[in-house]
Amino acid sequence: MCRWMAYSGNPIPLETLLFKAEHNLIDQSMSSRSADTPTNGDGFGVGWYGPRRIPGLFRSLRPAWNDFNLRDLAAQIDSHLFLAHVRATSLATVQETNCHPFRHGRWLFVHNGEILEMEKLHRDLLLAVDAALFGQIMGSTDSELMFYLALTLGLEQDPLGALARMAGLVERTGRAHGVNQPLWMTLGVSDGESIWAVRYASDGDAPTLYYSRDVKDLATINPQIPQLLGEQARAVVSEPIGKFAEIWSEVPQGTALHAHAGRIEVLPFQPSG
Amino acid sequence: MCRWMAYSGNPIPLETLLFKAEHNLIDQSMSSRSADTPTNGDGFGVGWYGPRRIPGLFRSLRPAWNDFNLRDLAAQIDSHLFLAHVRATSLATVQETNCHPFRHGRWLFVHNGEILEMEKLHRDLLLAVDAALFGQIMGSTDSELMFYLALTLGLEQDPLGALARMAGLVERTGRAHGVNQPLWMTLGVSDGESIWAVRYASDGDAPTLYYSRDVKDLATINPQIPQLLGEQARAVVSEPIGKFAEIWSEVPQGTALHAHAGRIEVLPFQPSG
Amino acid sequence: MCRWMAYSGNPIPLETLLFKAEHNLIDQSMSSRSADTPTNGDGFGVGWYGPRRIPGLFRSLRPAWNDFNLRDLAAQIDSHLFLAHVRATSLATVQETNCHPFRHGRWLFVHNGEILEMEKLHRDLLLAVDAALFGQIMGSTDSELMFYLALTLGLEQDPLGALARMAGLVERTGRAHGVNQPLWMTLGVSDGESIWAVRYASDGDAPTLYYSRDVKDLATINPQIPQLLGEQARAVVSEPIGKFAEIWSEVPQGTALHAHAGRIEVLPFQPSG
Amino acid sequence: MCRWMAYSGNPIPLETLLFKAEHNLIDQSMSSRSADTPTNGDGFGVGWYGPRRIPGLFRSLRPAWNDFNLRDLAAQIDSHLFLAHVRATSLATVQETNCHPFRHGRWLFVHNGEILEMEKLHRDLLLAVDAALFGQIMGSTDSELMFYLALTLGLEQDPLGALARMAGLVERTGRAHGVNQPLWMTLGVSDGESIWAVRYASDGDAPTLYYSRDVKDLATINPQIPQLLGEQARAVVSEPIGKFAEIWSEVPQGTALHAHAGRIEVLPFQPSG
Repeated sequence: MCRWMAYSGNPIPLETLLFKAEHNLIDQSMSSRSADTPTNGDGFGVGWYGPRRIPGLFRSLRPAWNDFNLRDLAAQIDSHLFLAHVRATSLATVQETNCHPFRHGRWLFVHNGEILEMEKLHRDLLLAVDAALFGQIMGSTDSELMFYLALTLGLEQDPLGALARMAGLVERTGRAHGVNQPLWMTLGVSDGESIWAVRYASDGDAPTLYYSRDVKDLATINPQIPQLLGEQARAVVSEPIGKFAEIWSEVPQGTALHAHAGRIEVLPFQPSG
Repeated sequence: MCRWMAYSGNPIPLETLLFKAEHNLIDQSMSSRSADTPTNGDGFGVGWYGPRRIPGLFRSLRPAWNDFNLRDLAAQIDSHLFLAHVRATSLATVQETNCHPFRHGRWLFVHNGEILEMEKLHRDLLLAVDAALFGQIMGSTDSELMFYLALTLGLEQDPLGALARMAGLVERTGRAHGVNQPLWMTLGVSDGESIWAVRYASDGDAPTLYYSRDVKDLATINPQIPQLLGEQARAVVSEPIGKFAEIWSEVPQGTALHAHAGRIEVLPFQPSG
Repeated sequence: MCRWMAYSGNPIPLETLLFKAEHNLIDQSMSSRSADTPTNGDGFGVGWYGPRRIPGLFRSLRPAWNDFNLRDLAAQIDSHLFLAHVRATSLATVQETNCHPFRHGRWLFVHNGEILEMEKLHRDLLLAVDAALFGQIMGSTDSELMFYLALTLGLEQDPLGALARMAGLVERTGRAHGVNQPLWMTLGVSDGESIWAVRYASDGDAPTLYYSRDVKDLATINPQIPQLLGEQARAVVSEPIGKFAEIWSEVPQGTALHAHAGRIEVLPFQPSG
Repeated sequence: MCRWMAYSGNPIPLETLLFKAEHNLIDQSMSSRSADTPTNGDGFGVGWYGPRRIPGLFRSLRPAWNDFNLRDLAAQIDSHLFLAHVRATSLATVQETNCHPFRHGRWLFVHNGEILEMEKLHRDLLLAVDAALFGQIMGSTDSELMFYLALTLGLEQDPLGALARMAGLVERTGRAHGVNQPLWMTLGVSDGESIWAVRYASDGDAPTLYYSRDVKDLATINPQIPQLLGEQARAVVSEPIGKFAEIWSEVPQGTALHAHAGRIEVLPFQPSG
């Protein structure tokens, strides 16, 4: 189990949400409210859209809570849209190429959850990646593989459609190997303008996911920056940030979000294919 | 708060106690039973006495639970006496020179706790270190400084006496700076033949410390190795290892232990001056 | 370009050859005699056969020359057969899973060189790995892939035959993608009893490789340990260790070695299959 | 021996000078032109002035040439004034707190060289640091200590005066311990508006230092950015960047520079008392 967050709104220092809010993502790296894996100390990453076409990426195999470089960068860097992730793994090695977000061109991708019995599906799923993209896979996680499958299936043209096709492919591949309910996930994806997020599990019991309904709610998590975020600001998080649980709406099972220009569409999500 | 353990007995693979026992030290690195700091992910170290005069030392800034080198070394290396430590800090930087054990010649030193308001005492305590030893201080922790103060005050000739003088020096220095109860600690020290341990706090409320009374008890924590440890085996731990809490004796407040050749002496400990 | 060494003989501390010999492998990590890449600072590893069935493995992404853990372990650990490697890469990420040696059961594998235009061959070569082994590939190097191809093709039953079939497979796959001379390599392989080594390039111009003809020669590189290595000791190295270049025999192009029980067989090596 | 650079001018991406110029600082980390220590792989750091009052700082114990985070940050971050450093050490441990630049408030400090026989002077020099600053020393280098001595002696009010007093203190302390010529250094210091640099050695043979005389010269090192740097741009470097050695003026022995608003003052530098 991991924890992630995505923010879109006025440009703010990354630290505003990563460090200064109560029960922020960095706090969650040491003690999330998850009963199963309270510690998310197996590396972290942050991807942000700034002045360049390609988003910036800072990933480290250290726990987020004791990385001084992260503190400094989060204080210096402003962004109108960023994704951050703290990792907990019992499977893939802790190395930077296994840390989220994953990046392809302008696209960033974060994941929480897993493909069950991945060892049975790994080879077939890898083969399904477009040959032109194959060489860009740098790590050994199911997460990065899901990203490259989604890219293969049209993520850049039709994000939610491609994510549904990716989910369908994983489920069909699982069933072919006797794994009937392989998917258990939340996903976050961005192209620098929109945030797409998905909560889905084959058995209907995916990890938690929340979104902020209104900027006035978001602002309450950090009273020092009430007007900073802007009216169109939105956030999507694995676990509520800030102390007021009521400002966060839980994303229902089998649901996708599309956050753009201050609006959040809530849509059903089903694997397709 | 940190967690540490010391073992003396028949030579065994380090992994026997570090990884294979229930609720072992590596498990404690991710989820100790301490309410305040369940996570001890700010580096780790292990020091062991083997075929050389100088003990081996392996320290890393990674969390113990995700370090594959530690797993491999703990499987390969046998030792009749070793100390291991998992670190949690909100103060000194996470770097190898701040990881325990600290080593000087044949001596190893581990510490759990802290010198309160250390910033007020740091300079004066550093000045009290013997000039010939001063240049060997590599890190920035209060722990390493306490070790070099104890060495200055005769650790190699009179271990418990030197630890008492070190504690006395810290308390006097504290009071001189308006810090009336500066010490809150458990310590473990070895020269490769004995283990000395101390539980002491200025206010009488030091962190927990336990020792195993008899090898038959120790053996129960790992049923796969019942005869391996030998009749003289003993262990000292911050927190019980194994599932049977009853095999461990709590070290009382203000107490020192001396484990040697299968016997454990339990002695009162008071700072001296 | 990387640098590696393999030793077989009396059990000696790893440091005897890794640190104490002149122009040793750790020196070569900072300044090898190779004109193209004098610096091999992109991680290192050492694998050694000791008291367990499975060899030990210590790999790190730091430069070998500044890793204190390596110094300590090399001083503490004795082995009768070990392989060590310092890495230089412009291709794959510097992470522990990309450091040599690679290990499978009792087998260790090191590599110097590269598969040219690997990006064209990668997918097809990965598909050729036995499905049962596929999931054990942890990193992203051509080196590890060559090891798993050799395992697929029978390394454990017929080492030099499997290496020849692996080389043949790579060359055929290369030609199918328009890469006519894809292989440029030296290899070192061991099962804890023998060392096999190969020097081969498709164009006949493989990196250098040397072996020691006689233990009296080997002993001269460290006058402090003249009788220590034993009469059957042999070493294979990318680049001579010690100052007397004349004690090393260059392995000819297109040649395999088999060192066992003090004898070194020198055999022609040709890709097959 | 280390290598460093300082830039002041129009805001540019850090990568313009760190990665895109010929024979840039990152290239120098792997193969500088210094005969003694061509490899500067013992960590690196960059400090930059951006939108905040406090400069940003990114330091890592990895070699600069293989750190992907550095590449990304250097591509994303713009600055009008930055200092960067690649380290080579045979003395102090490779850890982030020993990497340059060192920072205090708005001030950054880089150093190349060493205090000879530092072990004899260390304790006395440490004692000379202002008690209020003492606790901010995080690492174990002579470099950081020189910075805190200069701060103690008035760096923030009178930079070149304080550096001269620091040098005088080191030389007097050296002589008191029988080290007659202890200093061998180049220094770079900034407050975000000016760059001060010093080339000085007790024996008159300090490491090299260069500065760019005119922006037209600087521009020639990267033909892709001819107008970008601005007329007031200046750089100070340990070793020339770019292929045209003639655009760099060597700083004479015993000399200080003050670069501000496009002008560089060249002043004599002598330790003072």
